[in-house]
Amino acid sequence: MLSFFFNPKSVAVIGASSNPEKLGFAVLRNLIESGYSKIGKVYPINPKDTEIAGLTAYKSVTEVPEPIDMAVIVIPYPYVPDALRTCGEKGIKGVVIISAGFREAGREGVEREREVIRIAKEYNIRIIGPNVLGILDTFTPINASFAADSPPQGPIAITSQSGALGTAILDWASAGSMGLSKFVSLGNKADVNEVDLLKEWGNDENTNVILMYIEELSAGQEFLNEAKKVSKIKPVVAIKSGVTQSGARAVSSHTGSLAGSEQAYHAAFQQAGVIRADSMEELFDMAIAFGYQPELKGKNIAIITNAGGPGILATDALERAGLSLARFENATIQTLEQTLPDAASAANPVDVLGDAFADRYKFALDTVAKDPNVDGLIVVLTPQAMTEIPETALAVTEKAKEIDKPILTCFMGDKRVSEGIKILTENNIPNYPFPNRAAHAFKAMAEYQEILNRPEQVFENFEADKQTVRNLFDKVRGEGRYSIGDSEARDVLTAYGLRIPQSELAETPADAVEMANKIGYPIVLKIASPDILHKTDVGGVKVGIQNDEQLRDAYELMVYRARRYLPEARIWGCLVQEMIPSGNLEVLVGVNRDPQFGPLVTFGLGGIYVETLKDVTFRIAPFSKLEAETMLDEIRSKALLNGVRGAPPVDKAAIVDTLLRIGQLVQDFPEILELDINPLTTFTKGQGAIAIDMRLVLAKEPEIGG
Amino acid sequence: MLSFFFNPKSVAVIGASSNPEKLGFAVLRNLIESGYSKIGKVYPINPKDTEIAGLTAYKSVTEVPEPIDMAVIVIPYPYVPDALRTCGEKGIKGVVIISAGFREAGREGVEREREVIRIAKEYNIRIIGPNVLGILDTFTPINASFAADSPPQGPIAITSQSGALGTAILDWASAGSMGLSKFVSLGNKADVNEVDLLKEWGNDENTNVILMYIEELSAGQEFLNEAKKVSKIKPVVAIKSGVTQSGARAVSSHTGSLAGSEQAYHAAFQQAGVIRADSMEELFDMAIAFGYQPELKGKNIAIITNAGGPGILATDALERAGLSLARFENATIQTLEQTLPDAASAANPVDVLGDAFADRYKFALDTVAKDPNVDGLIVVLTPQAMTEIPETALAVTEKAKEIDKPILTCFMGDKRVSEGIKILTENNIPNYPFPNRAAHAFKAMAEYQEILNRPEQVFENFEADKQTVRNLFDKVRGEGRYSIGDSEARDVLTAYGLRIPQSELAETPADAVEMANKIGYPIVLKIASPDILHKTDVGGVKVGIQNDEQLRDAYELMVYRARRYLPEARIWGCLVQEMIPSGNLEVLVGVNRDPQFGPLVTFGLGGIYVETLKDVTFRIAPFSKLEAETMLDEIRSKALLNGVRGAPPVDKAAIVDTLLRIGQLVQDFPEILELDINPLTTFTKGQGAIAIDMRLVLAKEPEIGG
Repeated sequence: MLSFFFNPKSVAVIGASSNPEKLGFAVLRNLIESGYSKIGKVYPINPKDTEIAGLTAYKSVTEVPEPIDMAVIVIPYPYVPDALRTCGEKGIKGVVIISAGFREAGREGVEREREVIRIAKEYNIRIIGPNVLGILDTFTPINASFAADSPPQGPIAITSQSGALGTAILDWASAGSMGLSKFVSLGNKADVNEVDLLKEWGNDENTNVILMYIEELSAGQEFLNEAKKVSKIKPVVAIKSGVTQSGARAVSSHTGSLAGSEQAYHAAFQQAGVIRADSMEELFDMAIAFGYQPELKGKNIAIITNAGGPGILATDALERAGLSLARFENATIQTLEQTLPDAASAANPVDVLGDAFADRYKFALDTVAKDPNVDGLIVVLTPQAMTEIPETALAVTEKAKEIDKPILTCFMGDKRVSEGIKILTENNIPNYPFPNRAAHAFKAMAEYQEILNRPEQVFENFEADKQTVRNLFDKVRGEGRYSIGDSEARDVLTAYGLRIPQSELAETPADAVEMANKIGYPIVLKIASPDILHKTDVGGVKVGIQNDEQLRDAYELMVYRARRYLPEARIWGCLVQEMIPSGNLEVLVGVNRDPQFGPLVTFGLGGIYVETLKDVTFRIAPFSKLEAETMLDEIRSKALLNGVRGAPPVDKAAIVDTLLRIGQLVQDFPEILELDINPLTTFTKGQGAIAIDMRLVLAKEPEIGG
Repeated sequence: MLSFFFNPKSVAVIGASSNPEKLGFAVLRNLIESGYSKIGKVYPINPKDTEIAGLTAYKSVTEVPEPIDMAVIVIPYPYVPDALRTCGEKGIKGVVIISAGFREAGREGVEREREVIRIAKEYNIRIIGPNVLGILDTFTPINASFAADSPPQGPIAITSQSGALGTAILDWASAGSMGLSKFVSLGNKADVNEVDLLKEWGNDENTNVILMYIEELSAGQEFLNEAKKVSKIKPVVAIKSGVTQSGARAVSSHTGSLAGSEQAYHAAFQQAGVIRADSMEELFDMAIAFGYQPELKGKNIAIITNAGGPGILATDALERAGLSLARFENATIQTLEQTLPDAASAANPVDVLGDAFADRYKFALDTVAKDPNVDGLIVVLTPQAMTEIPETALAVTEKAKEIDKPILTCFMGDKRVSEGIKILTENNIPNYPFPNRAAHAFKAMAEYQEILNRPEQVFENFEADKQTVRNLFDKVRGEGRYSIGDSEARDVLTAYGLRIPQSELAETPADAVEMANKIGYPIVLKIASPDILHKTDVGGVKVGIQNDEQLRDAYELMVYRARRYLPEARIWGCLVQEMIPSGNLEVLVGVNRDPQFGPLVTFGLGGIYVETLKDVTFRIAPFSKLEAETMLDEIRSKALLNGVRGAPPVDKAAIVDTLLRIGQLVQDFPEILELDINPLTTFTKGQGAIAIDMRLVLAKEPEIGG
């Protein structure tokens, strides 16, 4: 779809220059030096020159006699709109706008960028940028950037929102440890964004892994949906910066205070199957493992080392990463024991000892790689007196070619291991300077297996009485109210099939007694008034009422006190409510609307623990039943759900059902900004759950974007 | 004290060889090439040769006519004991035993190592090893190892328990990024261990920072005490491997299941002021910051960058590390704004923009470094088209010489930044390839400031009735019992001044009524029998008894039922116990005895949460009041101690007092293997705490080592 960017038949450089200090020179040089000018046509565009770098130059793209697929604009921002229009007139399909001075440059820049977008739409041009380093594809080959470095060919596609970071990325890649298929600097993302690149690269056969440096995503739900598809084809690894400076919309609910932008990105990446890197180092460490090694099909890793200490460090790192040391079959241990010296360790980690030549490594590799209990290998080497470093590297590369299990190496040291590392890298074996980094790369590979093994997500649809909710919201907003408390919100919950305490509004003590006898004692009495927010402050809640007499007394006292404290309050009467026995587990279900991703649903422990422990987890709606079930497994205090100290397990199915129904509610009504059910009292298995208390905040506009 | 190892007047190499394949050759070569043979005397010892490498060789050290300070033994293990004896006869003070084949080589090796220790004691020889790479001191200079690399001189002293890891460490150091003062491979630690090196290096003026690779510590409490002193002089950074394979002594208490070897090391390092590295990479990253830069006196960091993206990554990493972005004074911002281009950011992180030459970096550095709100700086550079990389490196090094604030750099990329990095490294500016690693180094520096600022620890001593405890333990063990439950353990607690529920043993219902009236209703009644472990199973606990009549009924029913269910049980009567009101916070105080460090005291949330959340923290006794107070701040649910949702704060002082008294108890009685107080019910501030339930496990031997 974007092939005119990555594999164009012809390219115009608008702003091409013969002055080596200009970016227009660098772009032209890269187009030539990358070899592109041999397979495609390059047209320098410059009002002054007739020839640049041996190529015929034109004053405008419209003067070029042949058709042009793609243009690179590298001229000062005031001239960009006109240049873009000429591209449109010429029928150019894709334009890379390198020029800066747009959205990143304040208010006037925003207006300029809008103009660029308008022109692009008018002429049906796809735009990369503005404010970018450029793009490249090592397989075409084409380098349409002003980068000083040309990376080697390889299986890794990278997009970076930051062009400057791109220069560092290309410098690292050019040093040889990492080969790229494609690189795109996305800049201001006026048009082409991560979603377009996912669509393009998901099926690109030259790309084994997609890396993304993301500062912000504008089309959150689209990204989520597209990444979900692509991550089933190849790993997508992302680093999201700016996580700690989460956008600070004022929030009034518990859920709101727990759920920031960071939580939304975390949930989105998790649901989409995007693997998260916390640093550039991690991003690259994962990239070379995914890019160059076969899949890790299980979690059992074998370590072969010539030194005990690093073997222990590797073991620690694997266990911390949630992986296991492979348990060898007896035959493997026997074979190792028969041939290795007595002092060697034939159990995992296999210690071939400090005096091991390459042949001993080779033997251990042969033996261990065969073991069906081994899913992947880490070969650790320290440069000791007898160590044959290049020979050992060769033994590893030969074994790697034979087997379908990933091998990562950790040749530790610097100069003395550099020749070995060169051999490894040239033969597609990722080497890590320290064992923990190899372990961490395996962790990402294991995570990716889980992503591949995820069953197809099924989204359920519940019957719901949408009209009741619509009517209530209209009424409430008609009155200029946007915050809905317990007594009104109950209709919303019942409309979506949730259980709430039996409850009725009584307008007199006699009413209340009649209702209480219907519900059954003990009951709870609550003052009902839209003007009293903090009921307990005015004695407006009485629990454990046992009989008619207590109820009559409580009703009269409650109304009397409320009137005395707040004479202007509208008092509707009192709510007579079923009393839920204590001692059941209280959980929280909430929703907060994230500006990028839409409805972010929270689950966690309720009551005072939600504030103190923040033991919560998140999903972006819609999510499947399986995902809701997974949420219950993600909280630290999940053992409480299964029953501790002999307590019976709680009704997890009821919590899952609540999560799904709430997920549907907030999708059906995008005007719901925040929602808290706290607590959702959950009974023992099979006995369901009841939403005891809830509140809801609506947007002032009837519909807001997701 | 160990100067004969690091600065000997003369050295004998027992097993010196002219065969380049032998380790005895490498040791001799290193002694000569390190320059040692110019300042000291080197005596090759070899039964066959009369001259090796141009030096006169002797058959035995006893044949050397002059005195010898130190010997290196590098001969096969069977000959080591005899060689060591000749060293003793010669009056040699220190011996490095490189030879392997001792404790690490199974049972016979252990016996051989014991013999070595016996000989060393007999002749008063200090031993490093066996099974080591050797030692070196770059300032003497001396290299008495068989390592292939000689590291450059620098401020970093390293000890590694693993010799093989040592070879990698020396290779890294030799590549130039890290200069060493001393290196010691400790191996089997038959004699000299980390404690000796701390004593030696704490006052070594050539050493700014001490690094340790530790697999296990044998003298835990000594290490703790010595490290506590040295960490007040210079940073001690340690990596402890084998953390996930904690020694698995069967444990029966909650505390035991929570407190493993990892927790003990964590607590010990924390109390000792030892900074923990999780990987070798972190260890080195911290080492160069500590070794080459001045102290970080606060937590406010300024970032200067020529690229927005890496600036955000650095900000994220700083915030994650618990540090802050410095808030500049207005004057700083104004100065920056006046000179930097409009598009630059004058706020922190300072973005000097992609087209910044070195002078713009220099100006920003000058301005920002002056700001009193800035404690440290990170200079980030990406290699863009206009970037003056070596010039910027020089600007940084000049500024660093002028100011007393640490500067770390992050020149990102590979070949294009390598010249700049070389300039930085040569001028003692630590460079990190990624911003998160610089941030992490600053985190360690901030941690070290907290260690330096810790007030002097004061250990309190409480009056205690030790004799009562001694008598009880003797009695219980006399009966062959080692597990002590609630009814007996109460005497132990009261002897150490802890509050327990008022309680008396009643032998008749009339007794019980009398006692209950003394204690005051409501009371709890419990069956008292050494044979009934699970009281509730036989209806042996009744809570909330309100009056004499209820008490009499409960007593008779309880004894009747107990007799009916367990006719053979000895029934002492019933315990009449004060009833503690519910709704107070329940915490856990426990002790577990760690094989390396002795009594490990646990504090955490009690009740069911201790099992599900494992929200606990640890200290090794003895610890100060300040440390006990810090424990209360370390649990995740600490907000519960301060009162949530308007609840009053709990009596923290009472918890601290309990921790200190229990700390003293387990020091006074090393036979206490495990102790649990769960729950310790804690009332509101000023109202104290009561140990509701407790159990205690004794060792079978009257005294065990700490």
